[in-house]
Amino acid sequence: MHCFFNPRGIAVVGATPNPAKGGNAILKNLVTGFQGTICPVNPRYREIEGIPCFPSLREIPDSVDLAILFVPAPQVLTTLEECAGKGIRGAIVESGGFAETGPEGRALQERMVALAREAGIRVWGPNCMGLVDALRGHVFSFMDPAALRRGFVPGDVSLVVQSGLLSAGFLVDLMTHGVMGISKACSIGNKADVDENDLLEYLASDPDTRVIGLYLESFREGRRFLELCRTCPKPVVVLKGGRSSRGARAAMSHTASLAGNHAVVAGALAQAGVTEAHDFKQMMDLCRSLAAAPPPAGGKGGIAVLSFSGGAGIVAADFMEDLGLAVADLSPGTIETLQGLFPPWMPVANPVDVWPAMERNMGTGIDVYGTALRAVLADPAVDGVLLLAFVGNFRISMDLEDLAARSREAGKPVFLWLLGTRDGAFEFQQRAHALGVPAFQELYRAVECLAAVLRERPAPGAVAPKGAAPAPGDVSPEVADLLRAGPGPLDEEQSKRILRSRGIPAVEEARVASEEECLREAIRIGYPVVLKGLKPGLVHKSEAGLVRLNIADAGQLRESYRAVRERLAGEGDVLVQKQIRGGAELIAGMIRDPQFGPCVLIGLGGTLTEVLRDTAFAVAPLSEAEALRLIGRIRGQALLDGFRGAPAVDRKRLAEVLVALGDLGLSVPRIREIDVNPLLVSEDGLAAVDATVVLE
Amino acid sequence: MHCFFNPRGIAVVGATPNPAKGGNAILKNLVTGFQGTICPVNPRYREIEGIPCFPSLREIPDSVDLAILFVPAPQVLTTLEECAGKGIRGAIVESGGFAETGPEGRALQERMVALAREAGIRVWGPNCMGLVDALRGHVFSFMDPAALRRGFVPGDVSLVVQSGLLSAGFLVDLMTHGVMGISKACSIGNKADVDENDLLEYLASDPDTRVIGLYLESFREGRRFLELCRTCPKPVVVLKGGRSSRGARAAMSHTASLAGNHAVVAGALAQAGVTEAHDFKQMMDLCRSLAAAPPPAGGKGGIAVLSFSGGAGIVAADFMEDLGLAVADLSPGTIETLQGLFPPWMPVANPVDVWPAMERNMGTGIDVYGTALRAVLADPAVDGVLLLAFVGNFRISMDLEDLAARSREAGKPVFLWLLGTRDGAFEFQQRAHALGVPAFQELYRAVECLAAVLRERPAPGAVAPKGAAPAPGDVSPEVADLLRAGPGPLDEEQSKRILRSRGIPAVEEARVASEEECLREAIRIGYPVVLKGLKPGLVHKSEAGLVRLNIADAGQLRESYRAVRERLAGEGDVLVQKQIRGGAELIAGMIRDPQFGPCVLIGLGGTLTEVLRDTAFAVAPLSEAEALRLIGRIRGQALLDGFRGAPAVDRKRLAEVLVALGDLGLSVPRIREIDVNPLLVSEDGLAAVDATVVLE
Repeated sequence: MHCFFNPRGIAVVGATPNPAKGGNAILKNLVTGFQGTICPVNPRYREIEGIPCFPSLREIPDSVDLAILFVPAPQVLTTLEECAGKGIRGAIVESGGFAETGPEGRALQERMVALAREAGIRVWGPNCMGLVDALRGHVFSFMDPAALRRGFVPGDVSLVVQSGLLSAGFLVDLMTHGVMGISKACSIGNKADVDENDLLEYLASDPDTRVIGLYLESFREGRRFLELCRTCPKPVVVLKGGRSSRGARAAMSHTASLAGNHAVVAGALAQAGVTEAHDFKQMMDLCRSLAAAPPPAGGKGGIAVLSFSGGAGIVAADFMEDLGLAVADLSPGTIETLQGLFPPWMPVANPVDVWPAMERNMGTGIDVYGTALRAVLADPAVDGVLLLAFVGNFRISMDLEDLAARSREAGKPVFLWLLGTRDGAFEFQQRAHALGVPAFQELYRAVECLAAVLRERPAPGAVAPKGAAPAPGDVSPEVADLLRAGPGPLDEEQSKRILRSRGIPAVEEARVASEEECLREAIRIGYPVVLKGLKPGLVHKSEAGLVRLNIADAGQLRESYRAVRERLAGEGDVLVQKQIRGGAELIAGMIRDPQFGPCVLIGLGGTLTEVLRDTAFAVAPLSEAEALRLIGRIRGQALLDGFRGAPAVDRKRLAEVLVALGDLGLSVPRIREIDVNPLLVSEDGLAAVDATVVLE
Repeated sequence: MHCFFNPRGIAVVGATPNPAKGGNAILKNLVTGFQGTICPVNPRYREIEGIPCFPSLREIPDSVDLAILFVPAPQVLTTLEECAGKGIRGAIVESGGFAETGPEGRALQERMVALAREAGIRVWGPNCMGLVDALRGHVFSFMDPAALRRGFVPGDVSLVVQSGLLSAGFLVDLMTHGVMGISKACSIGNKADVDENDLLEYLASDPDTRVIGLYLESFREGRRFLELCRTCPKPVVVLKGGRSSRGARAAMSHTASLAGNHAVVAGALAQAGVTEAHDFKQMMDLCRSLAAAPPPAGGKGGIAVLSFSGGAGIVAADFMEDLGLAVADLSPGTIETLQGLFPPWMPVANPVDVWPAMERNMGTGIDVYGTALRAVLADPAVDGVLLLAFVGNFRISMDLEDLAARSREAGKPVFLWLLGTRDGAFEFQQRAHALGVPAFQELYRAVECLAAVLRERPAPGAVAPKGAAPAPGDVSPEVADLLRAGPGPLDEEQSKRILRSRGIPAVEEARVASEEECLREAIRIGYPVVLKGLKPGLVHKSEAGLVRLNIADAGQLRESYRAVRERLAGEGDVLVQKQIRGGAELIAGMIRDPQFGPCVLIGLGGTLTEVLRDTAFAVAPLSEAEALRLIGRIRGQALLDGFRGAPAVDRKRLAEVLVALGDLGLSVPRIREIDVNPLLVSEDGLAAVDATVVLE
């Protein structure tokens, strides 16, 4: 990847003097900032933009290690062959006309990748805007040179964007809004070869990058991406386009990418410690916040809110509750200091409305904001400060330098929300940003970014690497026998045998061939029992009238047995099962996601599953700690903890079940899907009451 | 209220030449824009700002009908007496030092109101920033005159703000951001007399106001406010500060206001057709969107998205799904027109990524955006258009005038999201705004505002007025007898008798005094039965071990009876109840909200009530249509409709129950609270299985 970011010489294939063409823009952008050799290639010109032009790559006398291609798609292949001949290690193909145009383009793209692999050339693109390095002044892109005149604000956030125009739009927007500094911006287009994983790996160890933001419409190799996020020592922010089914459809026709079920994506990102963004500018705000603020100190305190307006403080407190940020209980010493600034009639409370204190001290030279800020930053009960301020034509002054220094010193973030004149607020925001203090024009955004900064992230590499999965094929002879069935669902009894073989508890039951056997087994199991008809290939037994509950004695059993047999109409078997009375009904399961492989699900189950959709996913294998965190992501936590006298979930045992489900998915590739629903919580512990294993 | 908005002459009591004081700012602001007589009042000066100054109100020879007071709180009362003598009808008291400072200030404020009422003077404030009328150039406020130099952008949105500094901050912010035009801005402070209801009523019929936005921390008379919203022919947007419990605490100490449970507020606002805002600038964006866009035509189509970038289109579709906006299925004719613009390899789909069409037609003079826009606006399957555009140093042009004209003509909103240079995007946004086309810098905000504009609102006055409640005291002798109990909860059996008296169905049951009576009643009711111990004052019976389920025969009944009696330890009665098997468990109820009076609740009940909090409130009385809309606000709708073979809810019958609960609350003031939980949905219809009526 080094040759893309630090080339010594660059050939521009498709360079042209026509200022309306991208091949001209690339050259102009290179001349502006690139210090190495620049070699335009085009057989029709001797010189372009004052630089000698070569008829072909072969003719270039100097050594070049990077080629930027802006030629019609069909010519890309021969150009790459020439690159190989010239010893070039990397090519940025900015031309379109590949996979995004349909099957023919896709075939061309595949030939291009095969050719490049053979020649040992890394290909970036095609159908992309290339890359920008704001620190070095590199613009390896056909972006309009006129749009770049203002220059970038160099900084420490690097972006990877899977949408060409969007990346250009972002950059122009950022350039002129000037509140987020850019290190590298990478537009990866069709990511035929170089993809988000290559870039994430590179940027993770890039000394010029502090935070990495990615806009992605698909994950090339989801598991590798997660692994890189988990081990990345820097905050990673991801905006995933195509969350909705409709969006996903658009994604498929756009960059020819496959979008997954967003519940899986959200779970996987959370598991890997990624901050998930939802909107474009919000993503930039999250990135600049994470880059500017000191890393979270892991304090268990809350936020102090200093506000010029009681109303703004009230709404900020509302947002903090929404986002799980505590309003700090200020220490008595802090209260005392603050009270000294306030008129006696105004009792100090957090959020602190500083206006009465300002009015009282007007003209005294007392710096109310500064004094209050110092007091709350020194308070051990305070993890961060939200400052809601007026700027512009107001008589309020604030010493930003002092504020920034004190925030750094205390290791606690100070975030600003600004109301005021457009230019005044902008100028203030820029000054604050330059000092490492994030400032915002929307109150919710300020609170949201502060929450992201203070959120605890798993320490990189603190979790077991994803490779520590059980070896495939590690199954008992009994299970091996079950796995010889054809594709489709195993029946409930077979499915539970597979679960039990991995230590997942299931309800006591017996498959019975006759009414008499059924009676014998019922006595062994103990009444009340449940009777189920197992019809091959049928999963929804209740809807088919094949489940009889509350069977209390032999008479009822006989009657039920006959009824179920009749419904089965000669097919399948009967299952007699202990009826257990339980509390919460959970769902647990495993699915094989096309992007992330085997994933584990936990949630509220039973009839509520589809109604409430209170479920959470994580990628297997899970450590016990990860499984516990996964359980903690169910919204209805109260139902797990023995709500209203119901038995509480043994979380450690449940975590073991989830780990086992993930391991099953990893070690037995023939299992496509596992559904344990309900997984019942009772006084006797957990038990799979119904389950289905689906084979590929 | 007329004298506040159209005074002929104004006295400024507390005027001063000291430019650091508010009394000077008020005068300067008046001189700048007010055309009538201005009379400064201050015994220490003969002239201020070149205007003759009077020692007292009595001395003013001219007729003045409005006084603006900026004098220390204790002097306000005598000043108001002088106002009365002078025949002044309205006073804006901008001074602080009243209820917001504690009990003494509160007493002073009460004396002030009493005095004003007696004298027939309306008082605006105290502790407020007064009012601004941007169309007339009126600034009746101590806002810093320097901050106002730029002047307001006159428009058709009027604001009411219960937070002084915030209203000033807003105005300065709006003035310089210039994308929302202001008609009137009213800072109502402690709203001792003039409150949000007075202003809402005035603005509802103000010809210069098209949309009304309110920031409130409390409702003075909640029911009146809702009534005004329901009958207001204009969109009303409300941001309620103090949603969280912590926020509510701050609200109490701030403007001495009482904040209610936000679930009730949200329900009441939705019922009255109010658009609820959550953040300050978002509220402005909602207001300007509602003011600019044509009223919703009630179409059942979707949104067409035209985007310069596939990525932006994908994320817009994600947001539309989040917000319940459909992505339009474009008609075949529209698809055909669009396809003519596109390269053949690019099949047209909504969201429409117009970039390939632009590339294809570059230099041909074909207006791609314009052609596409005309096509989608003419499509009957399209209710609105979202245009995602680049502005600034790009080679894309857009005919905004044409766009605005076509949007108006079609009666369909066109909303813009802009990415680009700071100044370019701002200039474009201002031009678009002036033409009535809302433009945004955040994509989510654009989609959110479009959704608010297209949301169906109940036609004003279409619902029965809130007065149509049953007359208080309309109760049967049996119920009257029950209501003679002291404060606290009635027991389950008593509570259900009250419910049955209003036609609310309850499970069959009998209160029994002996084991033999219990057996007789069980036979009459039919097994299985439930046994409950009714302990006086105890509401949570299950937790106290006083509920026995699944009693199948006389033997079990005897055993259970003795066990329950033992638990009761000589207190209370035993209730034997039919055990009914049901589907969904609901909760229905009535509470008496301090701001809105009797309110009705519906939600998912049983053990899920507190875990899921899937409930919705509305203010009583309810029409049947309102009750049906209320039921429609439960998130878990699927549970109501006979999910997985369970019986479906008879929504009409449930609506009747809700109407009856509301009427009970209105007609029987002694009832403080009603809790029906669970209200069971079974094959036989609805039945209250447990219920508690709490008396005041």
